[in-house]
Amino acid sequence: MFGEIKGLNEECGVFAIWGHKDASQVTYYGLHSLQHRGQEGAGIVVSDGDKLSTHKGLGLVTKAFKEGELEKLQGHAAIGHVRYATSGGGGLLNVQPLLFQSQTSGLALAHNGNIVNANGVKSDLEREGSIFQSTSDTEVIAHLIKRSPHPTLEEQFKDALSTIKGAYALAVLTEDKLMVAMDPNGLRPLSIGRMGDAYVVASETCAFDAVGAVHEREVQPGEIVIIDNDGMRSQLFSKPADRQICSMEYVYFARPDSDVDQINVHTARKSLGKQMAKETPVEADVVTGVPDSSISAAIGFAEQSGIPYELGLIKNRYVGRTFIQPTQELREQGVKMKLSPVRGVVAGKRVVMVDDSIVRGTTSRRIVQLLKDAGALEVHVRITSPPITHPCFYGIDTSTKAELIASTHTTEEMREKMGADSLAFISIDGMLEGIGRSSQDKNCGQCLACFTGNYPTEIYEDTVHPHDKVMNS
Amino acid sequence: MFGEIKGLNEECGVFAIWGHKDASQVTYYGLHSLQHRGQEGAGIVVSDGDKLSTHKGLGLVTKAFKEGELEKLQGHAAIGHVRYATSGGGGLLNVQPLLFQSQTSGLALAHNGNIVNANGVKSDLEREGSIFQSTSDTEVIAHLIKRSPHPTLEEQFKDALSTIKGAYALAVLTEDKLMVAMDPNGLRPLSIGRMGDAYVVASETCAFDAVGAVHEREVQPGEIVIIDNDGMRSQLFSKPADRQICSMEYVYFARPDSDVDQINVHTARKSLGKQMAKETPVEADVVTGVPDSSISAAIGFAEQSGIPYELGLIKNRYVGRTFIQPTQELREQGVKMKLSPVRGVVAGKRVVMVDDSIVRGTTSRRIVQLLKDAGALEVHVRITSPPITHPCFYGIDTSTKAELIASTHTTEEMREKMGADSLAFISIDGMLEGIGRSSQDKNCGQCLACFTGNYPTEIYEDTVHPHDKVMNS
Amino acid sequence: MFGEIKGLNEECGVFAIWGHKDASQVTYYGLHSLQHRGQEGAGIVVSDGDKLSTHKGLGLVTKAFKEGELEKLQGHAAIGHVRYATSGGGGLLNVQPLLFQSQTSGLALAHNGNIVNANGVKSDLEREGSIFQSTSDTEVIAHLIKRSPHPTLEEQFKDALSTIKGAYALAVLTEDKLMVAMDPNGLRPLSIGRMGDAYVVASETCAFDAVGAVHEREVQPGEIVIIDNDGMRSQLFSKPADRQICSMEYVYFARPDSDVDQINVHTARKSLGKQMAKETPVEADVVTGVPDSSISAAIGFAEQSGIPYELGLIKNRYVGRTFIQPTQELREQGVKMKLSPVRGVVAGKRVVMVDDSIVRGTTSRRIVQLLKDAGALEVHVRITSPPITHPCFYGIDTSTKAELIASTHTTEEMREKMGADSLAFISIDGMLEGIGRSSQDKNCGQCLACFTGNYPTEIYEDTVHPHDKVMNS
Amino acid sequence: MFGEIKGLNEECGVFAIWGHKDASQVTYYGLHSLQHRGQEGAGIVVSDGDKLSTHKGLGLVTKAFKEGELEKLQGHAAIGHVRYATSGGGGLLNVQPLLFQSQTSGLALAHNGNIVNANGVKSDLEREGSIFQSTSDTEVIAHLIKRSPHPTLEEQFKDALSTIKGAYALAVLTEDKLMVAMDPNGLRPLSIGRMGDAYVVASETCAFDAVGAVHEREVQPGEIVIIDNDGMRSQLFSKPADRQICSMEYVYFARPDSDVDQINVHTARKSLGKQMAKETPVEADVVTGVPDSSISAAIGFAEQSGIPYELGLIKNRYVGRTFIQPTQELREQGVKMKLSPVRGVVAGKRVVMVDDSIVRGTTSRRIVQLLKDAGALEVHVRITSPPITHPCFYGIDTSTKAELIASTHTTEEMREKMGADSLAFISIDGMLEGIGRSSQDKNCGQCLACFTGNYPTEIYEDTVHPHDKVMNS
Ligand SMILES: Nc1ncnc2c1ncn2[C@@H]1O[C@H](COP(=O)(O)OP(=O)(O)O)[C@@H](O)[C@H]1O
Ligand SMILES: Nc1ncnc2c1ncn2[C@@H]1O[C@H](COP(=O)(O)OP(=O)(O)O)[C@@H](O)[C@H]1O
Ligand SMILES: Nc1ncnc2c1ncn2[C@@H]1O[C@H](COP(=O)(O)OP(=O)(O)O)[C@@H](O)[C@H]1O
Ligand SMILES: Nc1ncnc2c1ncn2[C@@H]1O[C@H](COP(=O)(O)OP(=O)(O)O)[C@@H](O)[C@H]1O
Ligand code: SF4
Ligand code: SF4
Ligand code: SF4
Ligand code: SF4
Ligand SMILES: [Mg+2]
Ligand SMILES: [Mg+2]
Ligand SMILES: [Mg+2]
Ligand SMILES: [Mg+2]
Repeated sequence: MFGEIKGLNEECGVFAIWGHKDASQVTYYGLHSLQHRGQEGAGIVVSDGDKLSTHKGLGLVTKAFKEGELEKLQGHAAIGHVRYATSGGGGLLNVQPLLFQSQTSGLALAHNGNIVNANGVKSDLEREGSIFQSTSDTEVIAHLIKRSPHPTLEEQFKDALSTIKGAYALAVLTEDKLMVAMDPNGLRPLSIGRMGDAYVVASETCAFDAVGAVHEREVQPGEIVIIDNDGMRSQLFSKPADRQICSMEYVYFARPDSDVDQINVHTARKSLGKQMAKETPVEADVVTGVPDSSISAAIGFAEQSGIPYELGLIKNRYVGRTFIQPTQELREQGVKMKLSPVRGVVAGKRVVMVDDSIVRGTTSRRIVQLLKDAGALEVHVRITSPPITHPCFYGIDTSTKAELIASTHTTEEMREKMGADSLAFISIDGMLEGIGRSSQDKNCGQCLACFTGNYPTEIYEDTVHPHDKVMNS
Repeated sequence: MFGEIKGLNEECGVFAIWGHKDASQVTYYGLHSLQHRGQEGAGIVVSDGDKLSTHKGLGLVTKAFKEGELEKLQGHAAIGHVRYATSGGGGLLNVQPLLFQSQTSGLALAHNGNIVNANGVKSDLEREGSIFQSTSDTEVIAHLIKRSPHPTLEEQFKDALSTIKGAYALAVLTEDKLMVAMDPNGLRPLSIGRMGDAYVVASETCAFDAVGAVHEREVQPGEIVIIDNDGMRSQLFSKPADRQICSMEYVYFARPDSDVDQINVHTARKSLGKQMAKETPVEADVVTGVPDSSISAAIGFAEQSGIPYELGLIKNRYVGRTFIQPTQELREQGVKMKLSPVRGVVAGKRVVMVDDSIVRGTTSRRIVQLLKDAGALEVHVRITSPPITHPCFYGIDTSTKAELIASTHTTEEMREKMGADSLAFISIDGMLEGIGRSSQDKNCGQCLACFTGNYPTEIYEDTVHPHDKVMNS
Repeated sequence: MFGEIKGLNEECGVFAIWGHKDASQVTYYGLHSLQHRGQEGAGIVVSDGDKLSTHKGLGLVTKAFKEGELEKLQGHAAIGHVRYATSGGGGLLNVQPLLFQSQTSGLALAHNGNIVNANGVKSDLEREGSIFQSTSDTEVIAHLIKRSPHPTLEEQFKDALSTIKGAYALAVLTEDKLMVAMDPNGLRPLSIGRMGDAYVVASETCAFDAVGAVHEREVQPGEIVIIDNDGMRSQLFSKPADRQICSMEYVYFARPDSDVDQINVHTARKSLGKQMAKETPVEADVVTGVPDSSISAAIGFAEQSGIPYELGLIKNRYVGRTFIQPTQELREQGVKMKLSPVRGVVAGKRVVMVDDSIVRGTTSRRIVQLLKDAGALEVHVRITSPPITHPCFYGIDTSTKAELIASTHTTEEMREKMGADSLAFISIDGMLEGIGRSSQDKNCGQCLACFTGNYPTEIYEDTVHPHDKVMNS
Repeated sequence: MFGEIKGLNEECGVFAIWGHKDASQVTYYGLHSLQHRGQEGAGIVVSDGDKLSTHKGLGLVTKAFKEGELEKLQGHAAIGHVRYATSGGGGLLNVQPLLFQSQTSGLALAHNGNIVNANGVKSDLEREGSIFQSTSDTEVIAHLIKRSPHPTLEEQFKDALSTIKGAYALAVLTEDKLMVAMDPNGLRPLSIGRMGDAYVVASETCAFDAVGAVHEREVQPGEIVIIDNDGMRSQLFSKPADRQICSMEYVYFARPDSDVDQINVHTARKSLGKQMAKETPVEADVVTGVPDSSISAAIGFAEQSGIPYELGLIKNRYVGRTFIQPTQELREQGVKMKLSPVRGVVAGKRVVMVDDSIVRGTTSRRIVQLLKDAGALEVHVRITSPPITHPCFYGIDTSTKAELIASTHTTEEMREKMGADSLAFISIDGMLEGIGRSSQDKNCGQCLACFTGNYPTEIYEDTVHPHDKVMNS
């Protein structure tokens, strides 16, 4: 059960380091702490000042890298990438960083996000003679850099970035330079830290804790940061727009121990839970969260409402992709793999079940069923994000609009479908307030497009979902 | 960090089913839900009424069994086993169930526990001509069954059980019979359930939820249950002693969603946390538990004390055995793999850190350090088991007495060593009360040997730790 | 094509060494040179004087043993085994050497051959309380040793051997002794050599060349050889019968570079080819052999007949067990995998095709077809063994009698079935003469049972084929 | 022994098919028969008329492709490639066919050979903005096609070919077209056949026999052949130069059952052996060939000289890349892995040892030693190619000039070094005559550059060895 239900999938995690003699090892540990952002593949490119070397593999970081392979990656600078789980195809060709070797030098790129005008740019490039081995945006960016008429790599990079539109947290490594960049809207998170004398960059600050680094600051919207033997310097490649960081990072993607744009994720989630308890209170006996993403919010809901927080649901921590799926018949007999109710906690109780989001609605329906089968008298579902009614074009693999249940059903219809006794979504304002960023900024500096349809960038007719871009297998 | 620190290791998990046409598949899902009881190896033996077939493999259930292998195991009855993680050696020969084939019939055994007079019995058997391919207790039991002069298998089984002493939850399968047995003290858990017309047996009731079965009752101390085409029948092979179920099943081993001997584990742990808050209260700002085993207790401590419960520590859920260990140098630079502090939660706070047990003390010391490095002002450690001062001979891989820090240090010395601001263990009475079993029974029906040294069975001079029994590689 | 056609399968290869500091490594190279005798699994047990250690694996020696595993096997003495390919089941439990650990010492056995009274002995043992984890003969021998009332291991070994009947080349290792034995009829080959100060034992002398050892002598029928720190000594455990070594070792099994019982295999095969050219000459343009086993014989036929020898058939050397079989449809379109005709050699020619044996006849039929399709005008088949009309009970996996085409068809019928222009088998006398052993001995000291039905040992009603003994998977 | 000695390595094998409903399966069997041309990696691209799909893997064809993967490659046209064994690096990125996906269509290329002006062309392309993911020539060709200003793919292809210089047998697949091409000198073999209505193309004709196809003709020097739904058509893209096919294909690379440019390889090799017996006869007792490549020549030498041909050397057929190398110490004790002498054949004999070529001389020295250690009285080495004194730039991984022993030593010096009693190479004229192509053509239409230094194409200053082109790992 549940194992097969895809909800939201984060696009990727990026890690980079400059100035550490064990650059590839540190990157390995950093990527491991970003593993929740992508489980399909992992790769590292390392520079020893002279040349770039790389290793990539499918699966978890620990599967992709074995002892010997890591040792071969000697150098003082590295970038690494974990790639999200995609059902259809993929294969090693699409695992990042991508590495391009010219006669004289190499260029490696690791990218989290999605370029919305990729198709158009690609057509232009193809007309000029470019050819592509993958359909990834990253390859487009590399072509733009190489084709830029500017004399220095930094200017070529700025030139390339001025052409692309969309969301990107980007790390680029050459033999003698590390460059990172953030899109003008700052849609995806990217932080800078220090590890002794070394510089580190990561999609989430939990990677800094994992490698013993100290968080320094965020990469700003429209900023390029260049790190080389002369140290770190920064410039803007675009007029600073309002930051509009992805709301779902707080609600679902990021790890609770990360600070996303300076706000701790666990704390934000707990506030979301409290906020919900205020907005849509309910009489009940226990509060439970759907693990792992909704534990923090459930704690908050309990604290605010005074209803005790309990472990009402257990997630089997050994569920992975190699699981043999039960047959339909066994499924009907109740065989399940991922979530179990804690019968002793929910039987005979009125249960508040807190979850982070509803995409297609199937998962929620099954959890409600689970709880009722385990004897729950009532199940009240509280969702700590507003209804998701529009697809995301910024690197998140939500379904298409038609598949988003909230775009075609009222809340009451959804409640009925899932068999819950009540169902409530947090309000947009409640979510903004819960996360707690200054209300000075428009939308408190957050992207709300999947709830409102107001996309912070242009959307092109042929804008594609990231998961439609994978072709080789 | 931490990955390498072994504390307690549960011996194994057992699952059995009779009367289901997809017996091996159901066993696969059952074993998967018992995976926390053993990650080194998994095996299934299935009977189709005519012959026994088996498959075993190293590693997690999902690694040991691939689609094709499961399909080959056709039959209506099965027993399965997951084996605990052992550092030294092991190999496929030691993965259970063990299967013995005679000219006319087969005999398969799956065992959780430890036979304390195994060495003596084995010497006797060898003198009579028995030879052994492993050093496991299970092989000893099989020999005793086969050598018994009694005419029927059931009587042979009883005969064998009357010879052995110690702890065992045992499942035995032949072509036409499933037999399960529990040692006279009832040291290890074993439950019976129904899945439609089929009978199921499992070390923990969470396996029943996983396969859609209904929990019926416990296998009683000194009881043999026989299931075959004539249904289920039961008899006692030994004078019923007082039940003395392992206390650590509640404190640490079992899954929170299991009911162990009719008491829900999460609820028991939460009570343990409450009990601690009463016994050794402390002024603090946040309560946090060491995941996953101490979350429930931390919730209880928070509820009782009124101090808010928070996720102060995050456990990386992708840590497994294939991790490349950081070098000493990287470790000193702060690279860690398993646990991260949630800086935003603990920085500038007085933290209560609840954990389940202290074996060698190294893990606790590191967690205290982690929290302090993340800015915790004070760290107050609360342990929901009494000090472990004696080794366990009943299937738990604690260290030898010399390694048990509590057997050689006072609580104050331990506190000092781990750098905590305060340290307290639950009292034995507090633990018994917390778990909540009727105080009519001696020790409320629980084994307390590792806290008191009063072993419920004889202990022989040559009694060995289970982890000293593995030889082949 | 052909890949799926099983003909004869040798049972196993045995290697042993005493007194070499890299005993396990040498055994690895020795087993590798015996790989043609068994590809299903390989194992080594090593003694360091104190204890026995083992590693086993499925597949080729190079797959079963990886660098690290070999290094762990430290000691000065070792026995090793390669196991034959079996279609049905098998698994790691059946890979040899088998290792039995008692409280005080270990016992490891590696065996090539087949015990014809295994079932009876096993029944007796089971009545006395023995239990078996496999159905292999080797386990029976171990039980007999352990149950022997005699005081010393050597006497126990002799005692055990006096109970069993059949074919065996056997190596037994304990912590401080290596013992090898040959059945009273000397049915299987086993040779002794020296490698510096060390003693080596192997199924074929090609293993001595592979490890740089010097061949010394054969283990004699009914002989036990004991090697320990006092050196080597020998005794007879049975009245010496006439040696009756397996004829098929010369015809098919052994490697051309081995000397089997002092006769070089290539030379013997070449003589068989010459003999055939004398017995059943034919007018033709080219002689070709079916690679690899019949190359030597084809060279001999060519030399004797004056017809030029050519490579008329090529065997793809990358065919292994992981090959994806062509569909029936592709097969009909001519897709083949193992053998190809050399069109330039056979087109428009009258071809003599020499092969070693005919079991079911399917392979020969297909090769004739191949050659005709490639343009051969005539195909004359010459088989360097007499018609195989009876099953082998001495360790060779021939089919049952019903499947042996020669037991139900005349030579003319077979010729017709396979579409050959002529077909001839060597005569029994011709074969004996070709191999060239002294005609003083009965049958020149060779077993002829599969051609004549006169078995050199008793055959019991329940004598089983070795391939029917494998049960676990 | 020997395992580690690299001599010559063929670059690759190419297979293509158009018009067969099981195109990928047939390609799999075709590649399998070309496996001797490359064991490092294998790949297939298939077209279903609409889109291209691909799968690649490292290792042998049977390892790279598993059942499921082949099934996913549905289509009526395919190209496939096997890649040669390279010691240094490589990895999946360098496995062919390379596949390039544009917005509207795909382009796949499989290439055997080497482009001598690749560096220069690449520099030009990079100046115009091309970027490269590998350093393979094939990527250069793809860029040239895409950048060609011509309107049709065929013209673009011709345009690209007019830019490159060197050796190439090339197959290009798009959704609706298969194109193959041969360099103007026809340096590498490439043949066309029919399989029912389907067209097949392969590096060697043995692939046609393997799939049941009929050989039709060679792709001519400077010819492009286009196959699509309108059938097959051909054109010349370059003024036809004299064909100069690689001599070493006859001497060493190709399979004996292949016809290379209409001459059967076994027959050619046998003639080379006869020719040698005429040029440099010797008194001896036996003739033996180094398996597998020199068996045919040894047969020829024997036939011509009247000295009997024997199997004097056996090659272990299980030697692969996973072998654990013996330590230096074991090597000195005589442990060897690949070749064994047949003691019974060579002991006390004067032996003629026929081999195909001498690159660094180490292998020959060891074989001479082997034979002498096995008792050979004299060893006379006969080499069926002239001394290799110059590197090959056409796709063969010979060593650099300095490593070629014949470029720095006289024949007498080489003989002395290898400890042979005599050593002779075939003469250039003898080789040309032996292979038997019409002497009308210059050099009988063969490349002789590695013997003479007269390269059939320009050689650029920066011409690189193919094995220096692999970078990613
Ligand atoms: N070790 C961890 N402990 C707690 N939460 C985690 C941990 N790792 C990841 N998370 C959170 O869990 C989220 C994944 O949510 P979860 O509910 O477990 O998965 P899903 O809903 O996809 O099955 C992550 O994006 C992150 O917020
Ligand atoms: N999916 C789960 N959710 C919560 N708790 C679990 C889960 N699976 C196992 N547990 C509990 O966690 C215990 C293991 O404790 P944990 O602290 O995670 O490991 P360790 O201390 O060995 O690193 C188990 O024995 C069980 O009580
Ligand atoms: N490296 C080798 N060279 C030549 N002959 C070999 C070699 N290895 C094994 N043999 C011989 O080939 C026999 C196997 O015969 P073969 O015809 O190749 O296989 P099959 O008939 O089973 O397909 C071996 O038993 C042995 O006599
Ligand atoms: N199945 C086969 N039978 C005979 N010859 C083969 C076979 N496969 C390949 N060959 C020939 O053997 C050559 C390889 O030569 P070989 O001497 O075996 O290898 P190496 O010298 O590289 O060790 C091939 O290029 C081909 O000519
Ligand atoms: S549309 Fe939604 S998921 Fe996408 S970036 Fe915006 S908030 Fe995040
Ligand atoms: S000694 Fe401790 S761990 Fe062992 S069974 Fe008793 S309570 Fe459990
Ligand atoms: S019966 Fe045949 S195969 Fe068996 S041992 Fe005798 S000769 Fe050999
Ligand atoms: S140089 Fe030698 S190896 Fe290279 S193509 Fe010419 S003949 Fe062949
Ligand atoms: Mg979730
Ligand atoms: Mg714990
Ligand atoms: Mg054969
Ligand atoms: Mg060779």
